[in-house]
Amino acid sequence: MILRQLFDHDTYTYTYLIADESSNEACLIDPVVEQTDLYIKLLNELSLNLVLALDTHVHADHVTALGALRDKTGCKTFIGSKGDVQCASAGLEDKEVIFIGDIEIRVLFTPGHTNDSYSFYLPAIDNGYLFSGDTLLIRGTGRTDFQQGDAGMLYDSLHQKLLVLPKKTVVYPAHDYKGWTSSTLEEEALHNPRLQLADKQAFITHMGNLHLPNPKMMDIAVPANKACGQRK
Amino acid sequence: MILRQLFDHDTYTYTYLIADESSNEACLIDPVVEQTDLYIKLLNELSLNLVLALDTHVHADHVTALGALRDKTGCKTFIGSKGDVQCASAGLEDKEVIFIGDIEIRVLFTPGHTNDSYSFYLPAIDNGYLFSGDTLLIRGTGRTDFQQGDAGMLYDSLHQKLLVLPKKTVVYPAHDYKGWTSSTLEEEALHNPRLQLADKQAFITHMGNLHLPNPKMMDIAVPANKACGQRK
Repeated sequence: MILRQLFDHDTYTYTYLIADESSNEACLIDPVVEQTDLYIKLLNELSLNLVLALDTHVHADHVTALGALRDKTGCKTFIGSKGDVQCASAGLEDKEVIFIGDIEIRVLFTPGHTNDSYSFYLPAIDNGYLFSGDTLLIRGTGRTDFQQGDAGMLYDSLHQKLLVLPKKTVVYPAHDYKGWTSSTLEEEALHNPRLQLADKQAFITHMGNLHLPNPKMMDIAVPANKACGQRK
Repeated sequence: MILRQLFDHDTYTYTYLIADESSNEACLIDPVVEQTDLYIKLLNELSLNLVLALDTHVHADHVTALGALRDKTGCKTFIGSKGDVQCASAGLEDKEVIFIGDIEIRVLFTPGHTNDSYSFYLPAIDNGYLFSGDTLLIRGTGRTDFQQGDAGMLYDSLHQKLLVLPKKTVVYPAHDYKGWTSSTLEEEALHNPRLQLADKQAFITHMGNLHLPNPKMMDIAVPANKACGQRK
């Protein structure tokens, strides 16, 4: 497998290129529209065929490259079915399995940061890889105060969907703001402050007290992302 | 092996944490002084014992954490012998081999970006890892117009020291400015524009025509780094 982590400096977003070396099929997770030409350059240099671009959720902090990549490469575009993104090729369902060549990707519905948040789990390679979107960040989690976010649902997603996976699973989040690039589930279970709170109610109370300003790009990004990144 | 790539947003520097899980011994390559507390936090969380901090060269764009890490953890501090950094525990020599637990790290003298540039090669893990400092960047190289840089020497280092290693070796550079995090030697041999130039003379001419401004921090960073990062 080829796995490349790509960082968008303007929005602190991690995008992931996953490719199967035997078939040269590739997918991009959480691509950023401003980086589209760089993705195409890298795909061409590696002689990869982009078959799929997918988002973990409708983002509020950057504009997706799904539409641009579809237009330039003919790839399919997937997003979770709860995202209600009509322009996408398909809406993924919880427990659905997709393949990039021989690489198995399991879809996990992990709502809470938003009501349309999904994670993608590759069980069969090395110790397993989890692309956790904004559901689980390194030593943090996504916020829960917009786009039908729900701290109780996030707590359940974290504890019932993600932390039950093998503890050596490598965690690749959609963002990091301090320059850390990966973690493991074991490490987050032990050291993520939001996973140390006493119980679900304590988590809900903590998240309710954050009082964060809205993301700067939210009013542009959410409607654009509902249109696969294509601004009106 | 534990391998973590850490990014300093202010200087676009990649720092690498390498650790041997059987002995819990760890080293940091190219640490940045402003990140020292975060490194210590991560080392503690992972129950790792920092035995060594080392720099690929005397940097001009950030201040090293070697002295701060030595003071806080008691680790050794290594830098190439050509760096003439008297405060370091030792000056590494070309072809020297050091061990972090059972992990073998080979020292390669790769001058050209500066006259004291070294690369670190881990031959025995996966397809091999190369920590290439500023000698080889992803689709680029370090510049050669200060600190006794020499384009002819850089050409020789690239072609005679690095590109002769196995082609699947993963390349981890000291910087990237476009958000790319790793490459391979094969990929760089095929797609790095500076490795496509016709011959050594073409490379020297190309590097001589760059006319880049000096790094903003150079006048502070170089003398500080000669003192293991401790500013007067």
